[in-house]
Amino acid sequence: MRASDMTWHEYRDRVKESVIFLPVGSMEQHGPHLPLGTDTLLAGQMAELAAERVGGIVLPTIPFGYKSQPSSGGGQLFPGTTSMNADTLVHVVLDVLQETYRHGGRKFVLFNGHYENVMFLTEAADLFVNSVEGARVLMVDWTALLTEEMVQDLFEGTEFPGWDVEHAAVTETSLMKYFAPELVRENKIVDGGFARKPVYAVFPPDPSSIPSSGVLYKATFASREKGERLIKNVIPRVAEVVQEVFG
Amino acid sequence: MRASDMTWHEYRDRVKESVIFLPVGSMEQHGPHLPLGTDTLLAGQMAELAAERVGGIVLPTIPFGYKSQPSSGGGQLFPGTTSMNADTLVHVVLDVLQETYRHGGRKFVLFNGHYENVMFLTEAADLFVNSVEGARVLMVDWTALLTEEMVQDLFEGTEFPGWDVEHAAVTETSLMKYFAPELVRENKIVDGGFARKPVYAVFPPDPSSIPSSGVLYKATFASREKGERLIKNVIPRVAEVVQEVFG
Amino acid sequence: MRASDMTWHEYRDRVKESVIFLPVGSMEQHGPHLPLGTDTLLAGQMAELAAERVGGIVLPTIPFGYKSQPSSGGGQLFPGTTSMNADTLVHVVLDVLQETYRHGGRKFVLFNGHYENVMFLTEAADLFVNSVEGARVLMVDWTALLTEEMVQDLFEGTEFPGWDVEHAAVTETSLMKYFAPELVRENKIVDGGFARKPVYAVFPPDPSSIPSSGVLYKATFASREKGERLIKNVIPRVAEVVQEVFG
Amino acid sequence: MRASDMTWHEYRDRVKESVIFLPVGSMEQHGPHLPLGTDTLLAGQMAELAAERVGGIVLPTIPFGYKSQPSSGGGQLFPGTTSMNADTLVHVVLDVLQETYRHGGRKFVLFNGHYENVMFLTEAADLFVNSVEGARVLMVDWTALLTEEMVQDLFEGTEFPGWDVEHAAVTETSLMKYFAPELVRENKIVDGGFARKPVYAVFPPDPSSIPSSGVLYKATFASREKGERLIKNVIPRVAEVVQEVFG
Amino acid sequence: MRASDMTWHEYRDRVKESVIFLPVGSMEQHGPHLPLGTDTLLAGQMAELAAERVGGIVLPTIPFGYKSQPSSGGGQLFPGTTSMNADTLVHVVLDVLQETYRHGGRKFVLFNGHYENVMFLTEAADLFVNSVEGARVLMVDWTALLTEEMVQDLFEGTEFPGWDVEHAAVTETSLMKYFAPELVRENKIVDGGFARKPVYAVFPPDPSSIPSSGVLYKATFASREKGERLIKNVIPRVAEVVQEVFG
Amino acid sequence: MRASDMTWHEYRDRVKESVIFLPVGSMEQHGPHLPLGTDTLLAGQMAELAAERVGGIVLPTIPFGYKSQPSSGGGQLFPGTTSMNADTLVHVVLDVLQETYRHGGRKFVLFNGHYENVMFLTEAADLFVNSVEGARVLMVDWTALLTEEMVQDLFEGTEFPGWDVEHAAVTETSLMKYFAPELVRENKIVDGGFARKPVYAVFPPDPSSIPSSGVLYKATFASREKGERLIKNVIPRVAEVVQEVFG
Repeated sequence: MRASDMTWHEYRDRVKESVIFLPVGSMEQHGPHLPLGTDTLLAGQMAELAAERVGGIVLPTIPFGYKSQPSSGGGQLFPGTTSMNADTLVHVVLDVLQETYRHGGRKFVLFNGHYENVMFLTEAADLFVNSVEGARVLMVDWTALLTEEMVQDLFEGTEFPGWDVEHAAVTETSLMKYFAPELVRENKIVDGGFARKPVYAVFPPDPSSIPSSGVLYKATFASREKGERLIKNVIPRVAEVVQEVFG
Repeated sequence: MRASDMTWHEYRDRVKESVIFLPVGSMEQHGPHLPLGTDTLLAGQMAELAAERVGGIVLPTIPFGYKSQPSSGGGQLFPGTTSMNADTLVHVVLDVLQETYRHGGRKFVLFNGHYENVMFLTEAADLFVNSVEGARVLMVDWTALLTEEMVQDLFEGTEFPGWDVEHAAVTETSLMKYFAPELVRENKIVDGGFARKPVYAVFPPDPSSIPSSGVLYKATFASREKGERLIKNVIPRVAEVVQEVFG
Repeated sequence: MRASDMTWHEYRDRVKESVIFLPVGSMEQHGPHLPLGTDTLLAGQMAELAAERVGGIVLPTIPFGYKSQPSSGGGQLFPGTTSMNADTLVHVVLDVLQETYRHGGRKFVLFNGHYENVMFLTEAADLFVNSVEGARVLMVDWTALLTEEMVQDLFEGTEFPGWDVEHAAVTETSLMKYFAPELVRENKIVDGGFARKPVYAVFPPDPSSIPSSGVLYKATFASREKGERLIKNVIPRVAEVVQEVFG
Repeated sequence: MRASDMTWHEYRDRVKESVIFLPVGSMEQHGPHLPLGTDTLLAGQMAELAAERVGGIVLPTIPFGYKSQPSSGGGQLFPGTTSMNADTLVHVVLDVLQETYRHGGRKFVLFNGHYENVMFLTEAADLFVNSVEGARVLMVDWTALLTEEMVQDLFEGTEFPGWDVEHAAVTETSLMKYFAPELVRENKIVDGGFARKPVYAVFPPDPSSIPSSGVLYKATFASREKGERLIKNVIPRVAEVVQEVFG
Repeated sequence: MRASDMTWHEYRDRVKESVIFLPVGSMEQHGPHLPLGTDTLLAGQMAELAAERVGGIVLPTIPFGYKSQPSSGGGQLFPGTTSMNADTLVHVVLDVLQETYRHGGRKFVLFNGHYENVMFLTEAADLFVNSVEGARVLMVDWTALLTEEMVQDLFEGTEFPGWDVEHAAVTETSLMKYFAPELVRENKIVDGGFARKPVYAVFPPDPSSIPSSGVLYKATFASREKGERLIKNVIPRVAEVVQEVFG
Repeated sequence: MRASDMTWHEYRDRVKESVIFLPVGSMEQHGPHLPLGTDTLLAGQMAELAAERVGGIVLPTIPFGYKSQPSSGGGQLFPGTTSMNADTLVHVVLDVLQETYRHGGRKFVLFNGHYENVMFLTEAADLFVNSVEGARVLMVDWTALLTEEMVQDLFEGTEFPGWDVEHAAVTETSLMKYFAPELVRENKIVDGGFARKPVYAVFPPDPSSIPSSGVLYKATFASREKGERLIKNVIPRVAEVVQEVFG
């Protein structure tokens, strides 16, 4: 199921019929308690679970993403946030899609784990489908697939702040507790947030306007159980969408 | 105030101290009642009003933007929607910022009139500030500056659907009635909207999933008065933000 | 006729049959008496007049052009002269041509208002026609279409210096007096010119070799009437050429 | 030690002093018995072992590499061989180096697991050191560090064919048996090789000239023990070289 | 004097003080009587003669140039006309200038032998001088340096048609008779020319509008003696300009 | 046979049937005794001899190559070593191949004279054959075609060090004595070599690790006779390979 674990015989026998997942992550600060590879790990894990349900193949996760923005990831100033330029990200994704198409792949899922990647995956997908015949690309933002009940569950006792600022906070911390508890620094979990939600962007950013922990909302509301419930809620929904699109 | 109307003497005498506005528009379908240049016209007009308040200079509006997306502008399939590739848009903005910096400009406002431009203006602004010393760029999304009361006023009698799908609908139609009533086809104003709000993107898009008029929400709720009130509400707010950032 | 003023319905109904004009201007010093947007304004106005005669559609004028050269526009050192790199200009034009082709346009006129743009429009047109089937591009340099009599008329009492150095001088000042007299600073009109016509180029240029006013020839010979006569002379000729080429 | 497992605090505290390893792999056919991700897995594992010895940090392995060549990897025609264009690979590596430099990293090791990557890593390293002050990059091809005795040990009973064609053969199979025996299809291990060693390249390649299994030499000579001995031989040598270069 | 004939010791000892000539040619049809390499040969020969006078160094001539245009070289449709894209030409020249600067060169002459190259050499020179400190580039179009008397001499008995269309005609044929008579097919020398001088450009060009021989003016007026007189006239003038600019 | 010496008529009559050779050289230090243009001269001369045997056409040699590496050419620090960036070299070769294809060429030989060019010629050839139908490219590294006897002959009395470090040494000096004895500084011929053969690369390179003469092996073992024997040995072999590939 993981393309990197398959031999070329196994890959050859499945690529034409299978839905091909390309997870895209980032290397980005996720507060004092989550590792820099959080987006990459979650995108890869969730893509694998979804692929399992639909008999898909999962390509290696792209481990670097587009530049973090202050209002959705804390921004580029945090040490460790290691990003690609727009043009680079577009071409990595485009090259991988075109190569897989060359081998016979026609049904693609861009499975994104990093908010700032969206428009560059969009550009890559658009350039791709205009360069070939008969391929289709589904771009999934799994946060958009959560049911309203699941969102209420996640933010019970507080309120939903919008997905942009839900960074290194309830959702990602819960998911990391579920998938990789050994990588969560339990004693460093803190709540964070903007004094004032940013309504404009400044370049270069003013560091004093950014939560210094890198946590943009309330990580203390996270739990392994929430992570598990989220996965149980959203993975079937991803599979459903894949089937809606690719039949 | 419009750079294109100034002589080089006049420009020279003001560029170093002034805030420089660069409006960025698009050529994109805006339903059967609004012209393709709606975003360009509105970005230019609003930038001029804001610049007037802060003694700024307004560069010529970039009249083409990034590719329209189905869920926020109807998508590329509508005739007339004429877009630039990501890389092109980034470099147009970057070149203009660097040239103006060369002449002494240090305080820049990217005034955006097209939802899909945001991340590419972000890339241009990031590349720019990393290529020079002492310049700052403010990127304004004016919808984020409206007061909650103003939003309620605009959508009175219906509900606010989110800015992404507020395309060719209440806000833009009201503003066009205010700024350029002669370009509004009054007898073609219709309500539109998605049967089901899109929660994922597919490339190439499925035309049957997109409102066929190109109107993504309720244009019949628009009025010239709402346009006027919006402008009176938001322009001072833009000026305020400019002063917050550039002192 | 202006694409930006059309709705997408109107555009759709005409794009396949119409000749599509893309005016390309610049933001460049034009002496102490003409505005920085002179090339953009003239290219747009003249394209509209020509399009009217042939039932064409006029796309938004690209408001920035290639770098000004000392011997034909005074060069890049004049404040306000705000240019694009070669690659950027090529791709803006190429993207717009390809998008319009996608909507069904097949007959294109690149209507140029800035001397230095020519070879980059050439590259864009060449890349474009080699990337599609069945499109043709006419690139018009209107100065080449003036009758000999018209040139004599324009330069009566002095002599024709060559179009390269006719910058901010007789022709452009006359045309601006005709199209936008309110933008002409009458009391700042001066004659300028090179002490010695440049026979080579140096990078970076020697500012002392460039007329300090930015006027490269005799602007005082300009008049609104000459502007009007020029327009009456050249617009029918442009229309004639369009018909010659596109039938 | 893995950057992706560190929090930003941990990364910040070590990045300036540490040697930073960037492993670069590929997704490439490795015969009927080894997985497509062999180069990626080996580069990552070996970089981690070497980093451990010198207190280094290991960035996420880039999981796609340059195009496979017939004479060194079987070529692009094998299903599953999923490569990046030259320009894309150069920019991925360049972006990651520049970002890590921005955080304070100065000592870099490009740890390569795919023969065809070398010259593109060279270009990235060259562009990088010319774009910053005070950084150094060591590019390691671990095959060049093996002692002559180790090479004799590996190829005992047969002969050393040159590293270019030692693909999916003795060395890589031995290392995979050591690092990831569960991914080695034991019953599919075969010997392969060129009927005639290629002395020129043809584009597109002639498939009949390429060993159809994708194994370019004698995989049956591999053993877990050889893999272990190789690692014990080469990792200290890598650490030695790192110390030679960075002190 | 030819850099390619120097050893690195010799080059090292002269590069800092010398004027460095970079000739740029083309591979372009030059009628039935002149070879495809005419521009390359002439640019190289003339640059060497000029360099001799000023103690300069001549880099290898770039043997491919920008795309031939119908009105100045017959256009791309003639077999053998083998051109580079704009971006490629710009980067070849830019790379060579930057490398020579790295070795200590500060005084550069772009010596152009192909009409269509000018604006791309301009872009390369502009990017170059803006990327380094203290370098200057002189771009020479030798036709602009001919005295009026020399032009009259060349076109005696006919008239000067403008340099753009003087292609494969009097001047180039005379120079080739002087420099490389063995490459001139004497019995194939013909006069050519446009039925109607082109006043606009069409893409793709209409072959029927282009002189079918590829000769754009009167080659039969050429003579070895004219070639010799031209060289005696223009080389000292080039040297003079070099001294004017670099002292 | 040299394309640059042909008229367009002659080229047109042969291009479709002929094998087209594109030699690629460099401008690179070759010790105190050989000129900077050694690779360019040898690639061109050998390509012409091979083309003669197969009735081929030889395009102008590209006179600049990819960046010299310390272990194979001494590296970029030697004055005179004047290289192109990877992307530039790829596009020069790609443009020339595509243009020649446009004229009907289908059988191409990339004849390389500079070790460091190989992977960039590979990229150009790959992009080329994937952009057209029915073309084939043979890339020849003539050192790979020498018989074992010839290699023994060349290095008689010493030993063969590997082709990478055979730079400015036995082979190239012998060939230059054969082709251009007037360019060989006889009294400056020295032996050189690495104290320790490099087993890794460092950027920027450590100058003290590089032979200061620029000669990487034993140039004193060279002779005109060896050059002649090599040519007599290898040119027929090149012709043989060309016939093997193109029939």
